[in-house]
Amino acid sequence: MLWSTSPACTELETHVLDWLVEALALPEKFKSSTAGGGVIQDTASSAALCALLAARERISQFAINRDGVNHRYTAYASTQAHSSIEKAMMIAGLGRENLRLIEAPAVRGFALDPAALERAIIADRVAGATPLFVCATVGTTSSNAIDPLRAIGDICARHKLWLHVDAAMSGTAALCPEFRFIQDDLEFADSYSFNPHKWMFTNFDCDCFYVADRAALIKTLSVLPEYLKNKATDSGAVFDYRDWQIPLGRRFRALKLWFVIRHYGIEGLQFHIREHVKLAREFAGWVKSDDRFELAVDPPLNLVCFRRRGGDEINQRLLERLNASGKLFLTHTRLDEKFTLRMSIGQTHTRREHVQRAWELIGALA
Amino acid sequence: MLWSTSPACTELETHVLDWLVEALALPEKFKSSTAGGGVIQDTASSAALCALLAARERISQFAINRDGVNHRYTAYASTQAHSSIEKAMMIAGLGRENLRLIEAPAVRGFALDPAALERAIIADRVAGATPLFVCATVGTTSSNAIDPLRAIGDICARHKLWLHVDAAMSGTAALCPEFRFIQDDLEFADSYSFNPHKWMFTNFDCDCFYVADRAALIKTLSVLPEYLKNKATDSGAVFDYRDWQIPLGRRFRALKLWFVIRHYGIEGLQFHIREHVKLAREFAGWVKSDDRFELAVDPPLNLVCFRRRGGDEINQRLLERLNASGKLFLTHTRLDEKFTLRMSIGQTHTRREHVQRAWELIGALA
Repeated sequence: MLWSTSPACTELETHVLDWLVEALALPEKFKSSTAGGGVIQDTASSAALCALLAARERISQFAINRDGVNHRYTAYASTQAHSSIEKAMMIAGLGRENLRLIEAPAVRGFALDPAALERAIIADRVAGATPLFVCATVGTTSSNAIDPLRAIGDICARHKLWLHVDAAMSGTAALCPEFRFIQDDLEFADSYSFNPHKWMFTNFDCDCFYVADRAALIKTLSVLPEYLKNKATDSGAVFDYRDWQIPLGRRFRALKLWFVIRHYGIEGLQFHIREHVKLAREFAGWVKSDDRFELAVDPPLNLVCFRRRGGDEINQRLLERLNASGKLFLTHTRLDEKFTLRMSIGQTHTRREHVQRAWELIGALA
Repeated sequence: MLWSTSPACTELETHVLDWLVEALALPEKFKSSTAGGGVIQDTASSAALCALLAARERISQFAINRDGVNHRYTAYASTQAHSSIEKAMMIAGLGRENLRLIEAPAVRGFALDPAALERAIIADRVAGATPLFVCATVGTTSSNAIDPLRAIGDICARHKLWLHVDAAMSGTAALCPEFRFIQDDLEFADSYSFNPHKWMFTNFDCDCFYVADRAALIKTLSVLPEYLKNKATDSGAVFDYRDWQIPLGRRFRALKLWFVIRHYGIEGLQFHIREHVKLAREFAGWVKSDDRFELAVDPPLNLVCFRRRGGDEINQRLLERLNASGKLFLTHTRLDEKFTLRMSIGQTHTRREHVQRAWELIGALA
């Protein structure tokens, strides 16, 4: 899938991803008119893998691509980061044992502790490893915790580590100025991804992946056999998106994203995001005011983590009965070692009455 | 994307991939009722990467997943194999310099030379590397050459290497019994992939990837955080396809494949495949009977590689003028060092009149 395979497919994608930089007020360095740019990936897992590979090659001066891994490189994420970071470490041949899971204690709302991060980096360097990559999460899967980007970015800059920011679900909230606190200091990031297929009403799959230095990414993933050589590529004036991703072929996913933006408009999208956050806060209020329940953490956006008082077993049974009802589907996590239920509000047709009925059923089965 | 996320999505995919084992007369060991099974990937590139990762872990007893690559592992494919194998070596941290591109001389119709393969394996072992993986191609991108599976499989068995067979476009031909010679001795393969999105009238993306030992693949790609734990997974009785691929999420691609099979029926698919092969042979006949042109190789199926006599420059100019016409689109390759035009016949609505008009235009512009 070269530019020349379908110029429209590539050019529209570049435009739509540039529009989103503006709509979300992302750093200018992620725009295609700079040294950076955006591309649609299938999922945040693939985006994280591409970021890790680019980091791996940048630090090894592209020697790993040539000769393979022959040294210990370490990466860092919080204990609450997505499992895709561990999977990426395995795929990239760096080893899951070289991923350090940094404390994200309850007192910090399950966000990464920057001091612990820096201690781990220094310890690894002293032990002879080469620290490589940090993944900060803006809205963890588990509890929607928001890692402190300024403190983490500052550490990455001082120690010369690649900073990837994973905002899979929560990134969409930045459409609303009042929620842009989640990406304060994103200027520190080398790469960033969020999933319109999670909370921006776009059909799966659609992950928007941005890099500040596209040359590092492209050089990492480029292979050019004879049957893919062409004048447009030779000119250096076009993007060949196959060099921005794992597979060679690709779909015309920018279309659906464009149509979502056209259909709702930015104001329409903002309206629904605000509704979802309002509903989540209302739901959290109901949890708080019912003595049988407790909130695991104050919900920053649209994910409410809560539990029935009385221990893990009662919550596990409650989860099973709720899901068996066929009326709603919750998943669980562990926060502070405790089995915790997760209520996420972000689907296209979710209205207040649905959330209210969910809470009624939770109360009845509790 | 667990089984429990959408049981129908997983179960239908397993069924459709089992049906295709029967329709294509693939080895029984690729069926889900054995130790193997199939899964839909986005592209043959991702399938090759998954196969390489499974091979890497099987030979290292899963130590690479744990600690990272710390030894030299070598892989093998012909000089005509797809660029995705080189890309997979880079991504997996094994290094493109450890991919041996084995001769595929013109006298063998650009198919891999098994004796040269075995020499390379032995030389690498003597040099202290660990030979790991062979990719044989059934229908190379460049010229549709078909690597000799029996001889290669025999070498892989003796040297204990993982054999992956890439049949991206040509695999579909096996719907017709008379074309099953392309997969003779596929019993030797550890994994196999072909793309219904190339020649089976299925919209991109849809690659069918089969493994003989699904446990090796799953163990290679599995990570299980708390929020993905569930009873169905614990039971071991279901497939969680996220452990068969790079990303976590996935689409319901089995539906479109099922609908293609329903719409055409196996006999309908066979009819179109036979038509395309017939048209390609007719086109090749026209090339042969025109003194200005020559065939680069006799087309085994639906790809015709040919050139204007008179050198590379004249062919390059011809390609540019043809593509600039907007009437047809050819790509090129190099065979025996010579610039060669590629005419592929395999699209849903391609009829004899289109092929005839293409040949008239080629003749006129030549």
